[in-house]
Amino acid sequence: MTANQLFKNICRKKSFLCIGLDTDIKKIPKHLLSEKKPIFEFNKAIVDATADFCVAYKLNIAFYESLGVEGWQALEETVDYIRHHYPDQFLIADAKRGDIGNTSEMYAHTFFEQFNFDAVTVAPYMGEDSVSPFLKYPDKWVILLALTSNKGAFDFQLTEDANGEKLFEKVLHRSMNWATSDRMMYVVGATKEAYFEKIREIVPNHFLLIPGVGAQGGDLEKVGELAINDQCGILVNSSRQILYASDSNLFYKAAAFEAQKIQQVMYAVLLKHGWVS
Amino acid sequence: MTANQLFKNICRKKSFLCIGLDTDIKKIPKHLLSEKKPIFEFNKAIVDATADFCVAYKLNIAFYESLGVEGWQALEETVDYIRHHYPDQFLIADAKRGDIGNTSEMYAHTFFEQFNFDAVTVAPYMGEDSVSPFLKYPDKWVILLALTSNKGAFDFQLTEDANGEKLFEKVLHRSMNWATSDRMMYVVGATKEAYFEKIREIVPNHFLLIPGVGAQGGDLEKVGELAINDQCGILVNSSRQILYASDSNLFYKAAAFEAQKIQQVMYAVLLKHGWVS
Repeated sequence: MTANQLFKNICRKKSFLCIGLDTDIKKIPKHLLSEKKPIFEFNKAIVDATADFCVAYKLNIAFYESLGVEGWQALEETVDYIRHHYPDQFLIADAKRGDIGNTSEMYAHTFFEQFNFDAVTVAPYMGEDSVSPFLKYPDKWVILLALTSNKGAFDFQLTEDANGEKLFEKVLHRSMNWATSDRMMYVVGATKEAYFEKIREIVPNHFLLIPGVGAQGGDLEKVGELAINDQCGILVNSSRQILYASDSNLFYKAAAFEAQKIQQVMYAVLLKHGWVS
Repeated sequence: MTANQLFKNICRKKSFLCIGLDTDIKKIPKHLLSEKKPIFEFNKAIVDATADFCVAYKLNIAFYESLGVEGWQALEETVDYIRHHYPDQFLIADAKRGDIGNTSEMYAHTFFEQFNFDAVTVAPYMGEDSVSPFLKYPDKWVILLALTSNKGAFDFQLTEDANGEKLFEKVLHRSMNWATSDRMMYVVGATKEAYFEKIREIVPNHFLLIPGVGAQGGDLEKVGELAINDQCGILVNSSRQILYASDSNLFYKAAAFEAQKIQQVMYAVLLKHGWVS
């Protein structure tokens, strides 16, 4: 999928919502635990109920890995299900990988061939040759960590070099030459509002994947105001607020309701820009 | 395992070798491909042949993940096999994980509970709260990336702040307070010899996990000379040189020969310090 195709999906669906499938066996409704495949059944119900309101799903690999073989199977079935039934969804493996070349190649193989993800999140600490193996796949994306939503972001990401350039700015500056804005996005936490202006100065054209709205405290309208570029250029992620809206038998309806609530705010933001009617 | 126990193993086995099980289905001897579990059979043969010459095994998770469910099973069987037959081996999950708290918790659960690893490699970019969930497990270790062996290490890790402190130095300075030297090690590439002195100034007591000897070009004796502390304090990793020493039916004997060759150099280094006789 190109950036332009993603923008068209955003306009068509009046949403720049990415739903994070951080599916936790301890948090899903109890009645699902008697199912043969509780994680997949939960995901399937959530996806069927919410696909109209979002343009992307982000699968947090940690949650699947932690269940071993069974989790790995649930991941595979979920990706296949979304690919088959909702082929317009942009599929993100939230894996935060990054290693020396021959190892990053293996991770790229996993997420782009073994699974058919569109994008994978990558940590920049090990530099260009840890990221480039992910960029060898045409039409696939790297979503590089820039400024994350958590408190620990202050430990290293905001460190200034002798010229006053912060580490996350250096990550943006360097990596924007590793691929075009059709192949590279950046993770920028919704809680780091103060830095959006600077980020848009450095990467005016790139999509940003923005987590941290909702449970982590970011404000959706403000983020929209500060981070949108001339082709929308943002995907805002919400996970827990949607997934665990209810633990009743009708959890998926509660999830749809939450997703639609967010989508309605996004619709208003998109309306202001004249991209939708 | 404590740092002191690890040091005792090093003295007893006259080796500070860590063998990296970067097991690649495309590189293992062809005759194994007709086995029901080729990856596990390869690992089992390598471990049985080399366990006398090393104190640790490092399993590169990327290589197992890339095979999907089958790879995950091979990982599980390999860890169980080593735990059962060679309980004195220090077991490292080379995963380079690191994410917001609730996600790092999941990764920690995977590697410390689902699998019974002693340690997991973690990337520092997201800061303290991305690392601390791994430190909640008593007797388990975090091995934090400091200065890696690859070319991309120069992209960000050597960036100096306004006070002349390099990023990897800041990572060491900050993180050394997150846990004692019984719970935290650092990855320092063998190819970054020029920085060992500075590293030992900052973290004199911590173990270093040193990859990059062999295929990546680092020199074992020099590394020993520069990085050893008063309780040895280093594990040097070798992967490809040992694993793929031969693709004949007797590949494991060739692997043992390579492992022993490295161990003999280590023995000489340990002798010089008077730790072994």
